[in-house]
Amino acid sequence: MYSLKVPFFHFLRVLITLLFCSSVTPFYMPRLGTFRRTIHHDSKTIPSSSVPGFRKFYFNQKLDHFNYKPESYTTFKQMYVINAKYWGGANSGSPILAYLGDEEALYYDYKNFLTDHAPRFKALLVYMEHRYYGESVPFGLSTTKALKNSSIRGYFNSAQALADYAAVLLHVKKTYSAKTSPIIVVGGSYGGMLASWFRLKYPHIAHGALASSAPILYFDNIIPPEKGYYSVVTKDFKESSEHCYQTIRNSWAEIDRVASKSNGLSILSKRFSTCKKVKRASNLKDYLDNNYAYAAQYDPAEVDSICRDIDAAPIKTDILDKIIAAFEPATPQKGSKPCHDIEVINLEGWGWQTCSEMVMPISHGNASDSMYPPEHFDLDSFSNQCKKLYGVLPQPHWITTYYGSHDLKSILHKFGSNIIFSNGLKDPWSCAGVLGDISDSLVAISTVNGSHCLDLSAADSTDPQWLVQQRHTEVKIIEGWIAKYHSDHQASNKLSPPS
Amino acid sequence: MYSLKVPFFHFLRVLITLLFCSSVTPFYMPRLGTFRRTIHHDSKTIPSSSVPGFRKFYFNQKLDHFNYKPESYTTFKQMYVINAKYWGGANSGSPILAYLGDEEALYYDYKNFLTDHAPRFKALLVYMEHRYYGESVPFGLSTTKALKNSSIRGYFNSAQALADYAAVLLHVKKTYSAKTSPIIVVGGSYGGMLASWFRLKYPHIAHGALASSAPILYFDNIIPPEKGYYSVVTKDFKESSEHCYQTIRNSWAEIDRVASKSNGLSILSKRFSTCKKVKRASNLKDYLDNNYAYAAQYDPAEVDSICRDIDAAPIKTDILDKIIAAFEPATPQKGSKPCHDIEVINLEGWGWQTCSEMVMPISHGNASDSMYPPEHFDLDSFSNQCKKLYGVLPQPHWITTYYGSHDLKSILHKFGSNIIFSNGLKDPWSCAGVLGDISDSLVAISTVNGSHCLDLSAADSTDPQWLVQQRHTEVKIIEGWIAKYHSDHQASNKLSPPS
Repeated sequence: MYSLKVPFFHFLRVLITLLFCSSVTPFYMPRLGTFRRTIHHDSKTIPSSSVPGFRKFYFNQKLDHFNYKPESYTTFKQMYVINAKYWGGANSGSPILAYLGDEEALYYDYKNFLTDHAPRFKALLVYMEHRYYGESVPFGLSTTKALKNSSIRGYFNSAQALADYAAVLLHVKKTYSAKTSPIIVVGGSYGGMLASWFRLKYPHIAHGALASSAPILYFDNIIPPEKGYYSVVTKDFKESSEHCYQTIRNSWAEIDRVASKSNGLSILSKRFSTCKKVKRASNLKDYLDNNYAYAAQYDPAEVDSICRDIDAAPIKTDILDKIIAAFEPATPQKGSKPCHDIEVINLEGWGWQTCSEMVMPISHGNASDSMYPPEHFDLDSFSNQCKKLYGVLPQPHWITTYYGSHDLKSILHKFGSNIIFSNGLKDPWSCAGVLGDISDSLVAISTVNGSHCLDLSAADSTDPQWLVQQRHTEVKIIEGWIAKYHSDHQASNKLSPPS
Repeated sequence: MYSLKVPFFHFLRVLITLLFCSSVTPFYMPRLGTFRRTIHHDSKTIPSSSVPGFRKFYFNQKLDHFNYKPESYTTFKQMYVINAKYWGGANSGSPILAYLGDEEALYYDYKNFLTDHAPRFKALLVYMEHRYYGESVPFGLSTTKALKNSSIRGYFNSAQALADYAAVLLHVKKTYSAKTSPIIVVGGSYGGMLASWFRLKYPHIAHGALASSAPILYFDNIIPPEKGYYSVVTKDFKESSEHCYQTIRNSWAEIDRVASKSNGLSILSKRFSTCKKVKRASNLKDYLDNNYAYAAQYDPAEVDSICRDIDAAPIKTDILDKIIAAFEPATPQKGSKPCHDIEVINLEGWGWQTCSEMVMPISHGNASDSMYPPEHFDLDSFSNQCKKLYGVLPQPHWITTYYGSHDLKSILHKFGSNIIFSNGLKDPWSCAGVLGDISDSLVAISTVNGSHCLDLSAADSTDPQWLVQQRHTEVKIIEGWIAKYHSDHQASNKLSPPS
């Protein structure tokens, strides 16, 4: 039986694994494992080519925007990137599309939603790296080193990151004489949360936001555990194949049964072709767990493919053999034997973020039809583990205190405007996304067959019609915001004297 | 001729002097000087009696909301006060009126707008002290001592203060089972800025804001220097009496002329009955400057009274004698000779705030009809002086970066709701107030004869009809917000699952 006690790294592993918006950040995380199915991907999710015109810059960013100690004034080099190839030019009023970097180094020079539509908008493209990732780490450190220092990592949080983006965008507007250019911020996943929050906190800087696959409701128990991430993974697999779903559902106990034998872990290691011997059954289960989740998140076709392989086995095949048949081990290096690397991943920056403020109570839950064994998120246990790792307790109520999220519709339907919340309902994160319109201009666009951040990926000739339509709708809405911005701007502002 | 080089303390002195909302905080600052005219005031601006039912509490407040260093978790006791005497009770949905403390120790138990209307609203009253003032100083220090330490004073800023208020209000809602009680935040002057910003930044906590006499446009050169604070003082005096205005206008050069004599400062000291010898002519001029401004800000009747005394002198009376006739020196202590204390005041907390983020470029300006000699705000000189005082440079663009204010109407007319910006047009701070409606629910209420924060003072039988009407309008608007809150709350929130 799957243990009710939740292994700490399980959460973090899933989080770090799943929050990436692969469509904008083209590389799958190698730490995800080396299953062929998840490391090979189709043309929809990996950008097909680089785009000319990008120039990299560094902004002298204030370390602490919310403090005035001498040390708060320390600056670091924040990397940002401009592409002015398509821009209408200074004082043209042509918009700025600003990509808000998320929990990884900034990748920018590939085709994606921004480059696809820049010519239509005559947009200046700005991509900004999130502090403490990639090149944008204070004190010239690597993310890993910065995270080791309790004084240095404290500045690593979303409010500071949003203030960074505000400062860079004002600087860009000034530098490019773009006073009359409305800014539309774009982000996916964690970056999508940042985009929606940025529009809410800095409406005077961003005129609108496209927040793709942003699970802004995954805080402070707004989402009941049985309707969380894994309930969507379950649904995806169940919809693909009832037999497949049942097989996976039954496999966890079977892994435990084999593991409980005297040489059980050796048997599992051999049967699953793991690169190193399985140390605990939970490690193997987490690995499989992640791979199902990853498929559900990024590629419904992959779910179908896994299920086809599971279902293809003769009916009496051993459960584990059915699972094993669905995944092909990768070859770590030339000449070596193909194997599965199920090692626990290095959590890096996102591990810190979830242990400080981004506390999402993710668990399997205990829905009776779950594909996963029941599991309960224990905040106390989580907090204690974070305290051991980082010396400070997580602040699980801070995100909802600072950004809100409870009763979102009643609070925002007369407050705020110009945010698109887009979600693919195959994406497990959609469980915590905004799936209904809040007002005329705080709108939800959901696609039944969409996956994580799919709308932000580059258009492709093989795209289904609903995806073409989704992007078209998003572009039309953004065009409407920009047109309104200019008509409002032309109307004299009787309140503020000219500045 | 009045020097074009602006004495640094002049700004700060005016700032510290003028920003207080005397109607809510009942004591005039003694450091304002001891002119009879400004220390004695009428019943409209000083609360007439204390109100029963107040209880004082202390909240364990996080020192730094935007950082996760171990030291950020230090807590301090933030004082807040509850009056539940009028409240509708737990789960009643009756509102919370929350007073946001400003740049001084919290005074709360006097009659004012909140206590006057609490019975009508069945409101729970909450008054919160601003961090670093009064009892709410971290590390158990006094404001003075906290300001001496460059590490400690850094946490003293508006963003941290707003986050404090958010935390206290969520705590109060929980403690009083007031989940369905909408919160209306109320503040005046700097506290009015905080109220409007709180509604903009924390709409999920405050359902509306009454921002009285909040000069939120006094940043980053939104207000041209010739249309600033002193242009309204000039207008007030000119409207009271053209001769009075001309006399004051001519008096500055006359003070300089006398001061330039070999024993000029002694002559001035004697003629103006200063407690100590005048060290520089500018000290005397600043003192007079402040007193005219103070009268304009708080009491149009006082402006008239000063002008009556100036105008009462025979036409050929020496200019300075006319000025001297308008002010009667106070008696510092029993038995001593009446005199004017023109010493430079201790800036305390507000001095720090203006030298870090609240950089308001206040100067006499150079309007040709100004009652004051021309004066230019020199940001470089100001910044250097602040750096000398506090070791760090002011951040003059931070307020507009974080809160906005440029192009307010075009930015907010489709974003945000439920803020009343009230201003009295006799109040010099109204020059930087929001004086026109932004939208249906971001509304401006201006009164031609109103002074600083007058609407927040307690109702009095001698109140003019326009003041009665102003408060009535404000109360009706707030009632509308509360009614809408409840009707929205009753409509099911289809977005968020029950929490």
